[in-house]
Order: sequence, then structure tokens, then C-alpha cells
Amino acid sequence: MNNFELQNPTKILFGKNQIDKIENEIPKDAKILFLYGGGSIKRNGIYEQVTAALSKFQVVEFSGIPANPEYETLLKALKVIKEEKITFLLAVGGGSVIDGTKFLSAAALYKGDTPWVILAKNIRTEIGMPFGTVLTLPATGSEMNSGAVVTRSETKEKLAMGGEGLFPQFSILDPQVVYSIPQRQIANGLADSFTHVLEQYMTYPIDAALQDRFAESIMQTIIETAPKILADTTNYKAAANFMWCCTMALNGLIQKGVPNDWAIHAMGHELTALYGIDHARTLAILTKSHYLYNLETKKEKLAQYAERVWNITEGSITEKAKAGIEKTEAFFHSMQIDTKLSDYIDDYKGTAQTIAKTFMKRGWKGIGEHGTLTPNDVEKIVEMSY
Amino acid sequence: MNNFELQNPTKILFGKNQIDKIENEIPKDAKILFLYGGGSIKRNGIYEQVTAALSKFQVVEFSGIPANPEYETLLKALKVIKEEKITFLLAVGGGSVIDGTKFLSAAALYKGDTPWVILAKNIRTEIGMPFGTVLTLPATGSEMNSGAVVTRSETKEKLAMGGEGLFPQFSILDPQVVYSIPQRQIANGLADSFTHVLEQYMTYPIDAALQDRFAESIMQTIIETAPKILADTTNYKAAANFMWCCTMALNGLIQKGVPNDWAIHAMGHELTALYGIDHARTLAILTKSHYLYNLETKKEKLAQYAERVWNITEGSITEKAKAGIEKTEAFFHSMQIDTKLSDYIDDYKGTAQTIAKTFMKRGWKGIGEHGTLTPNDVEKIVEMSY
Repeated sequence: MNNFELQNPTKILFGKNQIDKIENEIPKDAKILFLYGGGSIKRNGIYEQVTAALSKFQVVEFSGIPANPEYETLLKALKVIKEEKITFLLAVGGGSVIDGTKFLSAAALYKGDTPWVILAKNIRTEIGMPFGTVLTLPATGSEMNSGAVVTRSETKEKLAMGGEGLFPQFSILDPQVVYSIPQRQIANGLADSFTHVLEQYMTYPIDAALQDRFAESIMQTIIETAPKILADTTNYKAAANFMWCCTMALNGLIQKGVPNDWAIHAMGHELTALYGIDHARTLAILTKSHYLYNLETKKEKLAQYAERVWNITEGSITEKAKAGIEKTEAFFHSMQIDTKLSDYIDDYKGTAQTIAKTFMKRGWKGIGEHGTLTPNDVEKIVEMSY
Repeated sequence: MNNFELQNPTKILFGKNQIDKIENEIPKDAKILFLYGGGSIKRNGIYEQVTAALSKFQVVEFSGIPANPEYETLLKALKVIKEEKITFLLAVGGGSVIDGTKFLSAAALYKGDTPWVILAKNIRTEIGMPFGTVLTLPATGSEMNSGAVVTRSETKEKLAMGGEGLFPQFSILDPQVVYSIPQRQIANGLADSFTHVLEQYMTYPIDAALQDRFAESIMQTIIETAPKILADTTNYKAAANFMWCCTMALNGLIQKGVPNDWAIHAMGHELTALYGIDHARTLAILTKSHYLYNLETKKEKLAQYAERVWNITEGSITEKAKAGIEKTEAFFHSMQIDTKLSDYIDDYKGTAQTIAKTFMKRGWKGIGEHGTLTPNDVEKIVEMSY
């Protein structure tokens, strides 16, 4: 096991009707910017619940934060924060609204010239403007971590940021929000959280026995829960397990003391930036190719995954590893998620070269848990996923 | 799954040579009370490492905190805190030193007449004097939770306390401390942490799929690690897994959203108060009797445990449940831990009645996850463990 530091101060309020408790979690004299996305919260009743819970505060609203939160939109919200002298941010939405709010938390207190630098140079934020979240779409885990991803459509870039100042003060996780989520989005959440676990687990053995079992536990629970919640989104028990798995998949716990990969995400972000493909689906497109391409360095963990998560007991290590990869693809297919780039876009030729060039331009010499996957390797992996 | 709140602000610094980092975790102007136990830290080098790390601070030492931290001793430390105008506490030890420090953290800021009230009435501590820990004996999980147990030998009482103000600010977890721990104490740590998981898990099914799997993961890892660390206490990999399991077993995570039992602990504390039997061994004495006595209400979870943790696939639910209980006792025996009260004391007759009377005197009408185990049931369970 590697040395690690772990601290996660976010307060989770999980369960039915927790939104009422927001009032106790925000300083009484706060001036709040209430941030949300395209307005689905006005159709499912969450907007009204939040508005009622905030009745004793000064509140300004900012709506219209899009999927893959867009830098230009966020600059407009930043202007509101400064003009209105906002002191607390409340994100009501999924990973995009929460990530956008994290950018604003950082940017509101940033002293430099342009907040773009926070993204371009991945400046760590030690202290941000305090914020809370009401999660409406389980998937990214952003509700209990300190990272964010922001898109700049102008330059087709999708960049990560973070820092210990960017943990939410609190996050409300009411599984009832799942009832009104379209099946396609639920499938995305399942695939996204599943891949988060894979990226923290599918590297090489390092005798971190508990972290391995926790990762396997989350994957087993997602696999078990997926057909239940997709069959009936109003199944509270399934919704609660789905929601808690998504949070635990990326709240920092299982990544401590072990190598991490994140190559699938790095490549996937480019597919979203280029073609607007849903984040989760870009991961499903790349997973099989990535693991087949890196079979030799990952086969021990792939075989352990196949055994423990998919009960594959027969065969050599390599055979088990390959069977585990097949099972993973079949799991995506079982959720109606296509796993080839050509399933999503017609004009896919040249994508691999474009992404490899982008990585080179950024000076990314090596990604993956060993830092050895070059832009040339990336080109081959993306090509395998056509 | 039940509604829950989860927040754990403790910063964990895990791994080799983390003690040096203490300096960065304590306010520069702090006046520190450095608390430890019987002096084993002077033999294994930890005392010197801590002293070196604290070289830039004003430090007062207080040693001699005994196993099952004793109220009268703690009052002496409290006097030092007040006389010396201490502002920060550093616990260097196992659960006893850390629990004693939690009592002091609460008592130092307590406004009432006598700090005994904090224990007698289980007053919740919202704000305590800040403290950090250097863990020298993995077992209780106290390094990452906000609870403590304090003994008053005068009245043969062992009482619990806690509150959100009693999380350590930081805890240093260096698995190398395990190298010099006597095997008997390591076995105690393994049994203690294993029973912590059991008490949060062995209740009734409530569809908290991930919490169940996390609990099973910790138990599987303890079972796998036990023979390795007992065979060679200097096996770093095994020491690291042992240490992390003990922390995760009682840092609050797996108890959220599920029923908890804690009857074995409630009864076990009495055996320690009466006879001075090691805490972990009191748990081993009571586990089998408690689960056999409550077989009907616990059999579903006992069977799930038998299947998933011990790979028992044959038999009815009741048969699997009983097999799981037998495996648990055999696991204690494999660590040279006896499981009958008569293995520890000769004059055991009357113990059950004494404990039942104590529970009645305290007005404890019902314990266990349903709150239905009366002093009469307690008497029968303790009797079964003779």
C-alpha cells in the first residue's frame, strides 16, 4: 500500500425529505446564489422544495448551466456573484451544475487576472467561497469530492481543476430525485460511476486488500442495482443504493494508497469536447480498447476483477482478464449503451490522430498508472474503439 | 436503507514516516499536552520521533494513562491542562490514550460542575479542545471517530461518551508501529475490529447493499490478514491492511443507514469493569452466545455472512447461520483467544445476575437493534457464555 492522506469534510444528508434541513447548514446572514441547469427541477418539484427551504435567506437565482459546464456561461454567473455580493453558493443539479459551482467557488476568491488560468494551469484552490449541493442526478460523485471539470466550447477544451477548498460544505442526497430521471441518464450515471471505480482499481496489485474489496463492492452493487432501477425508477431501495454507490465511487476513499489510471477519462473528455457525446458514453466507448491494449500490464487486476466481480473461475490469468473485459462490455450493452465510436458518429475517421495531437500539444507525454502511455499509444487505443 | 447524516472531518496521514508531518497540522502558537500510556513508546522509538516533530512547540507531557482510561487519572491530566493553559492535546497511544484524550477535550471546555456528568449523563460534546493522535495500537478505531469509553474503577463503571466536537483534527497511522506490538495485543486488535463490524452488520436485512458489502469486505480482509500479521509482526503489507481495517471498522461509514446492535459491547464492558478482562476478549466471550440466543431475529444476516464471508453455500438459512457462528468462534480460537468466561476467571458464577442488575439499575430496559433485549435476556446470554 502506498502512503496517503485522506480528509473529506463534506457533510452528507442522505434520505427522504432532507432538503428541509438546508436551512440549518447555511450561515443565517448568507447571501445565496442558487444555481441550476435547464429547468428540470421546476418540473419535478425540487425547485419548490429548495425555494421553501431558503425562504429565510436572501437569494439570487442563476439558471441555465449546461451539461459539461461551459466557461462562458460560468463567467456570467461570476459577474452576478461580484455584483450581488454573494457569500454562499447552492448548486442544485447533477455533476455539471456542481462542477460549475466549484469553478465559481474558486473563481470568486481568485486574485489573478483571468480565472481561465485556474483551468489552464490547474491551479489548486485552497480556499473557495463556501457552497452546498442538492444532488438531482447521481453519477459523477462531485457532491462529495473536491474536483471539477469545465468545458470551453470556443477552444473545444475540457479541463480539470480541484483543491482542498472545493469540498461542498454539505450535500443533500435524496434518492427520490431519481424517480423522474430519464432512463438514458440513469444508465449514464451507472456507467459513469462504474468506470470511476475501474479507473481507481484496474492497475496493478499493490496489496491494498481493503481498497480492492471496497472497489469490488461498489461494482458488484452497481451491477446488481442497474436492472432494478432501470426497470422501475421509482424503486426507492434501488434508487438509494444507486445514489450511494455513485457518491462512494468518487469521494476519494477507494483511490487512497493505490495507483490510479484515469486514462479512459482523459481520452473520453476529448470525445465529449469534439463531438458532444455524453461523458458516460465516451467512457463506455474506450474501456474495452484501453484494457485490451494494456492487457499485459493490467492482467492480474483484470483477472481478480473477473473472479470476484463476475464469478469467472475458469481459465488462465489472461483468459480470465479477457473474460472480465467482455463482461464489462456486455454490462454496458445491457444498459442500452453502445460501445463503439461508430455507433455515435458517422465521420469518426481521424479522431484518434486529432486526440493524439491534442495531447502532444498540451505536453502530455505519458498517461495511465505508469505514466507511460504516449500520444502514439492513445492514438492506437482510440482507433481500436472505432 | 434508513436516512442518515455522515460527516467525518478527521485528516488521516497514513504510511511510513508520517510522524514528521505533525508539525504542519498543529497551530504554531499552540501549547501542547503530549499524552501517552505506560511508556512502551519510549522503547519502540515513537517517543523520540514525536518529540523531534514537536521541537518547535511548547510541550508539557502527561504519561501513565492506563488501559481502559481511568477517570481519576484523567482528572489529574485535566488539572495540568488548566494550570498550564494548554490549547492543544496530542494523544500518542492506542484506543485507551485516545479515548482518555477525548474525555479531556470535552472536559477542558465543559462548563458544568463536575466533568463526571459528561459520562454519567452522556452529554454530547459539540466543541472540544482540538487534538490530534498518533496511533500506536490498531484496534478501536478511536483515531477516526468521535466516541470514547472511560472507566471509573471506584464504582466499577465503564461508560461511553461522544459528540461531533470529538473527532481528532488529524491522526497519524504509520503501520510500522505494529512491528513492536506483542502478539496478544495484535490478536486483541483483530478481534476488536472484527466485532465492531459484526455489531454494525449482524442485525436484519434493510437493503443497504453497499454498506453490507463494505462490512463484509472489512471482515474478509481481517480474516485474511490475521494469520499473516500474527506470523510476522514486521510484515509491512499485513500491518498496513490490519491498521486500515481497524480504522474503517469504526469510523462511522458502515454504520450509516443501517440498524446497529452494540449489545455485545454493552455486556462486554461490564466484564472488563468487573474482572479487568481485555476489552477484545470480552467480545469474543459473548459473541457466540449473543448470536445463538438471538438466532431467530438475526438468522438472515447470519446466513448472508456465512455465505459471503465464510463461503458456506450448503444448508438452510438456519443451518448457514449456525455455521457462521461456529466459524466466528473458530476464528477467535485461531488467534489464541478463548471464548468462554470460565477460561478467564474461576469464580464466574453470579456474573450474569450481577450484570443484569447493573443494567436494571441504570434503567436500560432494552438493548440490541430492536431495543428489546431486557436485563433478563442479558442474564441468559451471559450465562450461556460461562
